[in-house]
Amino acid sequence: MSGFAATGPHVLRRMNATAVLGALRASAGGTARVADLMGATGLSRPAVTRALGLLADAGIVEFFEGNDSRVGRPAVRARFRAELGHVAGIDVGPHKVLVMITDLAGNVRAQHRVVGPPAQTGPELAGLLRTTLVEAADEAGVAPGDLWAVGVGTPGVVDHERGEVVLAPSIPGWAGVSLLAELREWLGCPVHIDNDVNLAVVAERWRGETSDNLLFVQWGERIGSGIVIGGKPYRGANSASGELGFLDLVTPIDAEPPQASDGLGSFERLVGARAILGLAVERCAGLRAALEHGDIAPLFTAAEGGDADAVATVDVVAARFARGLAAQLLILDPGLVVVGGGVSRAGTVLFDAVRRHLRRLLLVPVELRVSALREQGVALGAVRMALDSAERRLAKDTAA
Amino acid sequence: MSGFAATGPHVLRRMNATAVLGALRASAGGTARVADLMGATGLSRPAVTRALGLLADAGIVEFFEGNDSRVGRPAVRARFRAELGHVAGIDVGPHKVLVMITDLAGNVRAQHRVVGPPAQTGPELAGLLRTTLVEAADEAGVAPGDLWAVGVGTPGVVDHERGEVVLAPSIPGWAGVSLLAELREWLGCPVHIDNDVNLAVVAERWRGETSDNLLFVQWGERIGSGIVIGGKPYRGANSASGELGFLDLVTPIDAEPPQASDGLGSFERLVGARAILGLAVERCAGLRAALEHGDIAPLFTAAEGGDADAVATVDVVAARFARGLAAQLLILDPGLVVVGGGVSRAGTVLFDAVRRHLRRLLLVPVELRVSALREQGVALGAVRMALDSAERRLAKDTAA
Repeated sequence: MSGFAATGPHVLRRMNATAVLGALRASAGGTARVADLMGATGLSRPAVTRALGLLADAGIVEFFEGNDSRVGRPAVRARFRAELGHVAGIDVGPHKVLVMITDLAGNVRAQHRVVGPPAQTGPELAGLLRTTLVEAADEAGVAPGDLWAVGVGTPGVVDHERGEVVLAPSIPGWAGVSLLAELREWLGCPVHIDNDVNLAVVAERWRGETSDNLLFVQWGERIGSGIVIGGKPYRGANSASGELGFLDLVTPIDAEPPQASDGLGSFERLVGARAILGLAVERCAGLRAALEHGDIAPLFTAAEGGDADAVATVDVVAARFARGLAAQLLILDPGLVVVGGGVSRAGTVLFDAVRRHLRRLLLVPVELRVSALREQGVALGAVRMALDSAERRLAKDTAA
Repeated sequence: MSGFAATGPHVLRRMNATAVLGALRASAGGTARVADLMGATGLSRPAVTRALGLLADAGIVEFFEGNDSRVGRPAVRARFRAELGHVAGIDVGPHKVLVMITDLAGNVRAQHRVVGPPAQTGPELAGLLRTTLVEAADEAGVAPGDLWAVGVGTPGVVDHERGEVVLAPSIPGWAGVSLLAELREWLGCPVHIDNDVNLAVVAERWRGETSDNLLFVQWGERIGSGIVIGGKPYRGANSASGELGFLDLVTPIDAEPPQASDGLGSFERLVGARAILGLAVERCAGLRAALEHGDIAPLFTAAEGGDADAVATVDVVAARFARGLAAQLLILDPGLVVVGGGVSRAGTVLFDAVRRHLRRLLLVPVELRVSALREQGVALGAVRMALDSAERRLAKDTAA
């Protein structure tokens, strides 16, 4: 009868507190009246009141005098103390680190981005990650050791359950680096890792497109995709689905595909952000000065403005991207494609051209949208993963 | 209280009879003792006996003296009368029709295959389908009008719920042909239609590979694929997933892909059965006489035997197929690929080469198996679909 004993008063109180906290956090602004929480949880007034008391004792909830809009008289409102703790979401790529620090409600408190020279080694990159994390935490007024949880997004094949980078062709020495163990020891909190594109999909479904079926394409220097079917991410048998970046549309059909020396996939070398920069420098003489800093934005600005070379170059980029995307759409027929990542900032001049080229390549239509999260998706998804971890700690604190 | 009234004795008897019939049909050889059926259904002996009586009255079940192996004395066994009715499964392609007639247990009673000239029109093909069905039914000793249900598999995008061919580029005038309505009127029984590759997947999971996650590739003159995720077919937003045949690995990246004039997709023109025949005729002078009948089998037989031209040609075919398959595997990472269709008969000389080329193109491993169903998969899947329909009639007859 141990199963029965496990539902004793202590466990029930904890379950009620977890339910009330969940309802409170889901409320607008993280505040609610007792009546709201009764409605959301189905619990009685005494049960909600007792749960809020427990949560207040644990420092998770506080009360303040609100206004009951229905009857115009003051009403006590409970507020989730999101400032109680902080988490970090980290997007680490071949030569950039973006760290986002948020409170427990996911409100961004600081954001720090460092761009280094490309093709860092694993240990160098791990060092850059630490410095950037310290700087971002400092900006947020949080000691790194006080973080509740950290999420990390990285390119390559990641076994997110074991927390291991299995394969990371774009960063020499990155797979197998003991990053997680080191971070956990340094920070003394849970550290989780997942593939960057998977996290961008998580962020998209948290803060962007919530459709239950979609294909998300991360388009930056690297290109990868995440598949959502029936509301769930589809990862594949080896956590290696969606590797659009390695699609080869260039090698003549009867030739042997070359082994990549830069860790990039064929499609990334064709139309990733670095390839776009190369094309723009080569084909738009008038833009060379503007492109000197390595940012591709001037290409799209010039194309918007009608610069003929820029328009033609953007059309080549759009046609190439459409060819690769079409290959994936023929297989998946997802109905909706959301494009995120750095290149998604390019705007309508690029994406209208992509849509035009796509139409000629597909058997059935697809809706293409640009993600509202742009290049922040991966870090936001890492934040979401860290918040899931922080929620487990909240649940434990509630029970204590 | 109408929901309550619906569970009266009549409905209960019907539910019990349906459960007992299901258990009986699932038994080896379609026969079982009352005790077996009690165990399988959880019903009492009187309930099972009453249900069997109902089924016997309806002509669905008969009894015979079996032998109870446990105690050595005779025991009454019930037998599902699979011969009570027949269904047809039909595989119709651009220039072939395969009709399979089975009893209600799926035992094949007759099989008839007709190959015509390619690129028939829709009405011509519908005519060929009728003649072939009449011939196969005749061979099975069944009047077409006595069929319980018919399943049809056809290339193209099929709305299997509405029973409409939405798009069939390979057969002029096939989409929108009133095939189903005409067949239903002629035969007076339910007629269902689905995409041929989807049906090959159904057959594969019924009679072949039962893995819950797999990619099935139908490789014949046409090339398409079916995706199974978590035990369920994934069809896509427009029932148009898996269109591997339209993948374009040939058009130079900055060129405009040509519009197909033959209704075939780019990958089908590259490495479908007809393309393989063309390659073999072109590159294997010594095989031209053997290849005259349009069958590609002599190519693979010669390659098995060590013919240098044949070996080289098979390697080209394998390399090309691997390039297209790799594109799909990079997206899906399915873990298991099953190849069916006519070309799957080619044997190890082809598939060992495919596996060798695949290994150089993938980031993670995949297991490639050849379907045991070969070119019968589509018709068998159509049979399965017809049997599902026949089962609904059985359930109704049981209730009468």
